[in-house]
Amino acid sequence: RPALRVGMVGHAFMGAMHSHAWRTAPHFFELPLVPELAAIAGRNRAGAEMAAQRMGWASVETDWQALIDRDDIDLIDICTPGNTHAEIAIAALRAGKHVLCEKPLANSVAEAEQMTAVAEEAAAHGVFAMCGYSYRRTPALALMKRMVADGRLGTVRQVRAQYLQDWLSDANAPLTWRLDRAKSGSGALGDIGAHSIDAAQFVTGLNITGVSALLETFTKERPMGGEFVGLGGHGDVTADTPRGPVTVDDAALFTARFDGGAIGVFEATRTALGRKNAMRLEVNGSLGSVAFDFEDMNFLQFYDGTDAEDARGFHRILVTEPVHPYAGHWWPTGHGLGYEHGFTHQVADLLTALGNKTAPTPSFRDALGVQRVLAAVEDSAANNSQWTTIEESKP
Amino acid sequence: RPALRVGMVGHAFMGAMHSHAWRTAPHFFELPLVPELAAIAGRNRAGAEMAAQRMGWASVETDWQALIDRDDIDLIDICTPGNTHAEIAIAALRAGKHVLCEKPLANSVAEAEQMTAVAEEAAAHGVFAMCGYSYRRTPALALMKRMVADGRLGTVRQVRAQYLQDWLSDANAPLTWRLDRAKSGSGALGDIGAHSIDAAQFVTGLNITGVSALLETFTKERPMGGEFVGLGGHGDVTADTPRGPVTVDDAALFTARFDGGAIGVFEATRTALGRKNAMRLEVNGSLGSVAFDFEDMNFLQFYDGTDAEDARGFHRILVTEPVHPYAGHWWPTGHGLGYEHGFTHQVADLLTALGNKTAPTPSFRDALGVQRVLAAVEDSAANNSQWTTIEESKP
Amino acid sequence: RPALRVGMVGHAFMGAMHSHAWRTAPHFFELPLVPELAAIAGRNRAGAEMAAQRMGWASVETDWQALIDRDDIDLIDICTPGNTHAEIAIAALRAGKHVLCEKPLANSVAEAEQMTAVAEEAAAHGVFAMCGYSYRRTPALALMKRMVADGRLGTVRQVRAQYLQDWLSDANAPLTWRLDRAKSGSGALGDIGAHSIDAAQFVTGLNITGVSALLETFTKERPMGGEFVGLGGHGDVTADTPRGPVTVDDAALFTARFDGGAIGVFEATRTALGRKNAMRLEVNGSLGSVAFDFEDMNFLQFYDGTDAEDARGFHRILVTEPVHPYAGHWWPTGHGLGYEHGFTHQVADLLTALGNKTAPTPSFRDALGVQRVLAAVEDSAANNSQWTTIEESKP
Amino acid sequence: RPALRVGMVGHAFMGAMHSHAWRTAPHFFELPLVPELAAIAGRNRAGAEMAAQRMGWASVETDWQALIDRDDIDLIDICTPGNTHAEIAIAALRAGKHVLCEKPLANSVAEAEQMTAVAEEAAAHGVFAMCGYSYRRTPALALMKRMVADGRLGTVRQVRAQYLQDWLSDANAPLTWRLDRAKSGSGALGDIGAHSIDAAQFVTGLNITGVSALLETFTKERPMGGEFVGLGGHGDVTADTPRGPVTVDDAALFTARFDGGAIGVFEATRTALGRKNAMRLEVNGSLGSVAFDFEDMNFLQFYDGTDAEDARGFHRILVTEPVHPYAGHWWPTGHGLGYEHGFTHQVADLLTALGNKTAPTPSFRDALGVQRVLAAVEDSAANNSQWTTIEESKP
Repeated sequence: RPALRVGMVGHAFMGAMHSHAWRTAPHFFELPLVPELAAIAGRNRAGAEMAAQRMGWASVETDWQALIDRDDIDLIDICTPGNTHAEIAIAALRAGKHVLCEKPLANSVAEAEQMTAVAEEAAAHGVFAMCGYSYRRTPALALMKRMVADGRLGTVRQVRAQYLQDWLSDANAPLTWRLDRAKSGSGALGDIGAHSIDAAQFVTGLNITGVSALLETFTKERPMGGEFVGLGGHGDVTADTPRGPVTVDDAALFTARFDGGAIGVFEATRTALGRKNAMRLEVNGSLGSVAFDFEDMNFLQFYDGTDAEDARGFHRILVTEPVHPYAGHWWPTGHGLGYEHGFTHQVADLLTALGNKTAPTPSFRDALGVQRVLAAVEDSAANNSQWTTIEESKP
Repeated sequence: RPALRVGMVGHAFMGAMHSHAWRTAPHFFELPLVPELAAIAGRNRAGAEMAAQRMGWASVETDWQALIDRDDIDLIDICTPGNTHAEIAIAALRAGKHVLCEKPLANSVAEAEQMTAVAEEAAAHGVFAMCGYSYRRTPALALMKRMVADGRLGTVRQVRAQYLQDWLSDANAPLTWRLDRAKSGSGALGDIGAHSIDAAQFVTGLNITGVSALLETFTKERPMGGEFVGLGGHGDVTADTPRGPVTVDDAALFTARFDGGAIGVFEATRTALGRKNAMRLEVNGSLGSVAFDFEDMNFLQFYDGTDAEDARGFHRILVTEPVHPYAGHWWPTGHGLGYEHGFTHQVADLLTALGNKTAPTPSFRDALGVQRVLAAVEDSAANNSQWTTIEESKP
Repeated sequence: RPALRVGMVGHAFMGAMHSHAWRTAPHFFELPLVPELAAIAGRNRAGAEMAAQRMGWASVETDWQALIDRDDIDLIDICTPGNTHAEIAIAALRAGKHVLCEKPLANSVAEAEQMTAVAEEAAAHGVFAMCGYSYRRTPALALMKRMVADGRLGTVRQVRAQYLQDWLSDANAPLTWRLDRAKSGSGALGDIGAHSIDAAQFVTGLNITGVSALLETFTKERPMGGEFVGLGGHGDVTADTPRGPVTVDDAALFTARFDGGAIGVFEATRTALGRKNAMRLEVNGSLGSVAFDFEDMNFLQFYDGTDAEDARGFHRILVTEPVHPYAGHWWPTGHGLGYEHGFTHQVADLLTALGNKTAPTPSFRDALGVQRVLAAVEDSAANNSQWTTIEESKP
Repeated sequence: RPALRVGMVGHAFMGAMHSHAWRTAPHFFELPLVPELAAIAGRNRAGAEMAAQRMGWASVETDWQALIDRDDIDLIDICTPGNTHAEIAIAALRAGKHVLCEKPLANSVAEAEQMTAVAEEAAAHGVFAMCGYSYRRTPALALMKRMVADGRLGTVRQVRAQYLQDWLSDANAPLTWRLDRAKSGSGALGDIGAHSIDAAQFVTGLNITGVSALLETFTKERPMGGEFVGLGGHGDVTADTPRGPVTVDDAALFTARFDGGAIGVFEATRTALGRKNAMRLEVNGSLGSVAFDFEDMNFLQFYDGTDAEDARGFHRILVTEPVHPYAGHWWPTGHGLGYEHGFTHQVADLLTALGNKTAPTPSFRDALGVQRVLAAVEDSAANNSQWTTIEESKP
């Protein structure tokens, strides 16, 4: 089988995750292409070399452009903050490299539109781009989508999406790049709300057509420095620790309408104390409902309105059966998967698509659709929560 | 102990519930006044007499005015649709009768303001009025409020309130008075959203200062007639069954701000298939969080941010200990209560307040505060979800 | 409708509960007989009078024999410790009074056999006896039985029953009558294990044919006196507080075989710290499974092996629909019931049976069957856990 | 860093799992030795070669003895059925190879004793052996043990362990090696009950001293052949399909005593329809309780009897914090792990121990202790459930 030689830009949390996925996918999936962990790029050579060794990459560059320039790289995997996505992705696609770009696609609609245009041009030449909304590949969410698509919910009426974390509840959590609008684009909205938006549109097959929103930042200044752990960190903070301004939202709330008449309510927050990674999605239809919570990621709740009348109740489906999406590639029934499997499924599907010379999903255009919702949310919030419609994202 | 002679107007679902509460409270609470189920009023004498017998009332009137005119009645208990609340309550208070009025207080802010003015005048003469937001007396919700008041959550930041039912998911559910705006005032918003608003303000001790809202009615016409069961009913519907217009919302979504800086998101719906009476309230503070779901009404979830670092997680508190609100009056630890106990606690607290010649809560002014939020939600929804501030309800 | 005049012996926890049931049943059920709370018997007149007033009884006797001697009593309701059941029940039945006797039926098989013989003789003359295994009337357990009886589980293979409480975890909980073998017969075994045995036999329709058991008492001596609260109490204990011997088990564990080939495992304990009233029962069949936990008493978990392959999972049924046992007599869908409703259903079914001149269930013979299992458990535990068969209880 | 060259015997389900662990551990843990996937042995060369390629092994042998004979192998990883463990492990240890042996250690106490003797002799020469009770390395179970060891539960009183699966509920599931006593030693008892026994002893730090047991096989004959999927498979069965005898238990139930006075109840079954991999363990102490269910493997339930009286309830701890065992090596807070992580932790701990020239745990002696309980369970079941004591396993 031919190889797909991967060059990855960035090697922090997401880089470690993608590396695991590239290493692991070929051992569990029959793939037309065999991934090679060819090179990573990181500005600091020593740091990049240490990362390459730990994560299993063969070589190192200190400049993403150098990575793109190499002839022995087929795909650029972008794991850097959002402000760099457009430049890297566009250069890579124009150089004929496939691209896997972390979400959110960009920090503005303008960038995302340009990326989409370049991606669609490249696709005409067999060079493909994909955006990393990995939650789509969680078996339970993929099953949820299949159930909706199969008509088992009837007409979709309501969506409720929450993405609740708490690592900013502590007012002394340090000021990382995720709290700097110049790098991250937005706060909870773009970081985790983007997942909810993509998942809601993916699962229902419906686009959001308008929103009304409210954004809030509870802690306006945070200590610079401190020990970084996980997403947040524990500030090693004294009264003297200098503080800098938080320029993004802690929490984003919005109501939404979908084409076809469904309505939804969304909440993304990093200050819901006690909720660690509660990415929840519920869809109510005329015949059935489905509900998911990432903290219980191996389960899907399904209410079947056609069950015997005395036996109706949410089915707590342990999504680990051979008949469930992805699950048959792993362990026996009941032996659950973890967070990283969504990423492994993502590269497995990507490799399959590329091997078949077909476009992987979600496309940049799909991700542009999410970007437009993010922008509309910010516009509405800045404008007295006024209803704000979403421009059509279809080509 | 002296008696409190009760006259009740209306004898449907809520009338049955209140009757149970009046009958039961004195057997479990030490009360300064002993309630007497003196009389009920219902337009149809035969129906009222049957109800009186089934529910344990001593006599019957066919006109609520006649009930108010009787000298042997001390309190009027109003269990009729919202369009009649103002007239009955005002007449009763002016006649020197205490009033317990079902929620929502009225069908408009204007009515609620007038009722509040009359109630406050009556209170000056020792005649008291209370609005029946009974969920406040669910032990878990009362514990939730106590925890917030005791500072165990720190500063309140976020509220998420859902009240999810599904009895209108069926497009053939019949057109009852609850779907007729002239009688009910509004749909899910006033019927169940009002509970969420009251509970959120009660538990946090904070007032909602503004909202942005969206209302939706999925099924615009419903069959007239059919068999009524519970809140909804199964329409015995054919193609010929005449249909009438639904004039209220099926679902109401809104975001909110509270005084003091907290934000919230609310959803009230009767079309969330599979959710039967999921009145949920979660409050996140800087030190802790609490979460409640009426479908598990005997439990309170409490996240204590001061627990040992490796032991943090929501405590699933079974709220049946002597140390918990109301619980010590009932069964041993672990032997849970049901829906009706909130109503029994309500009349127990009311009888205690009246016996002590003090004002019971929630007052009509508290209920007027809820009414103002309901009105702001409707205004915002009618006005492109634009941010709508709530007029101060404090005297 | 004719009256059924009730005389109740004992007025502690169970007396308060039965009183509530007698008062409440006629308001929610159409009954052929109207219960009258005629009299209670209690040794201390002052205490009995206070109880009568609080619980709603018309008169008082200080001797249970006096109660039986009265012509104006139709039914004797026995709410005293187990050591008194046989004498009172036999006297009452011989005097032509119907009997409702709290569980366990007696403190020995010999007593239970005698009671059963007398009850069956009385039944021939239209005088009926019932034992108060009230959990049978919890809607979810009644639904569970119906599902098994309807064949929806296929062949029953496995039963797992736990009844977990924790009020004896505290080594200073006081020495009450429930810890005195002379009065209570046994400890966790007879008090709560008896419920599990009855429920398992009731739900499956199968009899236990043999057991192997282990009993344990962790705290051998407890303070005499102290404040009694709920089932246990908080001992107001110092080093000087005299202690007395605990003569019953804290925990009872046993395995079992049922006729027809099913097997089961049972645990009853009052020292499972954190479990308040976790009366759990799970039944696995060849086609489906059901599971119940009294701490979530309004829910039944049902696994339907015939569901679509990708949708299998335990249905979390909120047992509050009109189609569910008992539920239609109460509140709308989703508005849950509490512990006391099982008792209200018990007297409703009893009054219906008596009105129809038919035998209520569970009969004394059913309760004798439980008694035989309790005895076999004690025998096995005393005999190196050796397998101990249960003598046939069928007439 | 020096390499540890691994040779693995067997390449089915467990082989795939161990391969993943060997490949993955060095990317997430700082290890003193770097594992090399040197060779696997499988009787069929073509099958072994395919497996080697899929699982990432460098070479293949068709005979386990050949693997042991190779100089370039440091450790033998035994992933074959239990009847082969003793022979392979003893040969490997005598050849100076470290051994990782899947559980249960052997098919008889005699074999396990011999293996332990050989292992202890080898250890004196720096050659170490470990048994693969991987559940010990699930973060929540490891936290459970730490909490008990730290005294946070006080004195351990009760253990309840269930391991519930359902892949033998279908009477047409095929007759695999797991149902053949000659290969597997026993059924649910040794396959999954062994995990419960090891986990109970590991978590509590107490040894089981005696048991009383019952074993049952519901389906005595099963089709030979059929498609194997996961642990069980779907038999492609007709009336003509020949059936063979099932020679092991479907379900094993037993009560137990631990040294120090605690008692326990155990159930292992493969016919609990609807339960997929419910490996549950609850421990009740005098001060606290902990409960675990592998179907929710990222959570630990902890009841802290020293919490504020009104806040007591099981803490639902999401065991993904840096302060929790193993969790800090993976993803941010709230991003859960899966089944395979226990195996990755197992080899990480093993490599660390070997690098430090210390003995890894669980040792063969620990596993011999489990074996003795398994044997006692079978003895008791064969002997009328009579109490059967466990011979001391300590050296």
